[in-house]
Amino acid sequence: MKALLIIDMQAGSFTPETPRYDTEKLIEKINHLSTLYRETGNKVIFVQHDGTKEDCYFPVTPDWEILPELIIDPVDVFVSKTVNDSFYQTNLDSFLKTNAISHITITGSATDFCIEATIQSALIKDYQITVIEDGHTTADRPHLNAKAIIEHYNWVWQNMSPTVGSIKVIAFEDYLATENNLI
Amino acid sequence: MKALLIIDMQAGSFTPETPRYDTEKLIEKINHLSTLYRETGNKVIFVQHDGTKEDCYFPVTPDWEILPELIIDPVDVFVSKTVNDSFYQTNLDSFLKTNAISHITITGSATDFCIEATIQSALIKDYQITVIEDGHTTADRPHLNAKAIIEHYNWVWQNMSPTVGSIKVIAFEDYLATENNLI
Repeated sequence: MKALLIIDMQAGSFTPETPRYDTEKLIEKINHLSTLYRETGNKVIFVQHDGTKEDCYFPVTPDWEILPELIIDPVDVFVSKTVNDSFYQTNLDSFLKTNAISHITITGSATDFCIEATIQSALIKDYQITVIEDGHTTADRPHLNAKAIIEHYNWVWQNMSPTVGSIKVIAFEDYLATENNLI
Repeated sequence: MKALLIIDMQAGSFTPETPRYDTEKLIEKINHLSTLYRETGNKVIFVQHDGTKEDCYFPVTPDWEILPELIIDPVDVFVSKTVNDSFYQTNLDSFLKTNAISHITITGSATDFCIEATIQSALIKDYQITVIEDGHTTADRPHLNAKAIIEHYNWVWQNMSPTVGSIKVIAFEDYLATENNLI
């Protein structure tokens, strides 16, 4: 069994004042992937940031909610986190181990914060990681635009030293062409 | 007690064919910091990449050696690592805990690989981390120059969600002005 992680796709991060790169297409891709994962009996995990300690993204406020455009199913799993790494003080690792899931596919936001921190953490926990190259996003930063940041992290992840686990970075369309791996 | 980590300052990464941003000044800064740490009874830890699995940086070959310009003292500690994270399958964590060191200062190379992976790992291990803003370096990448990469990571580290530990990013000169913290 594999798990699709959909990280921090919360309304408060996708407002007109906080635009993210290519959001509309990203939502379509994530919905396509999550449908595929459910249909093949794999797991869909929504990771949600609880920013109480940072005075934002308070649970059950509109900012905290998953984007309404994303398909959610009763069988999906929800993980609440408080820092960038989705594993830190959460039940994600125990959930994956309990379900004998060693392979996770990463999507969501933000590339340079929660996506990166979660990938780094998963890698040293020996997971096999697939990153959808055009399946994560971020915002323009003071010094760099979002597109350049996304390109940089995708490149780094493909060039890291291998742990017991692995990282594969693959474009959405190419991933779909190999979706039979899911079954 | 605190520890200064000097990561991957190995000869094979600093050849004329693999230039790194601002190497000469970086070496001066690291020598200044390591001298300060030794004088104040703190620890200096050299982390060295053993790239045997990647067919490079073989131990005890010239590429693997610490840059000859760096001051090394018999009291210094050496940690051999095989992936980007300096904690992965090494004795770094147990050494720090045995010596009751919860505060580490990060310097070295490369910003977007071993520096980043080590900081992410230290953060979720609840260490207090100081990053010398101009005390780490990298190379130009296919899509981004080294200076922009260094600026980006320094900015990200200052904006991460706080764990039980912390990250402080501070320029070398400002750090020296607060060096009495070391005593």
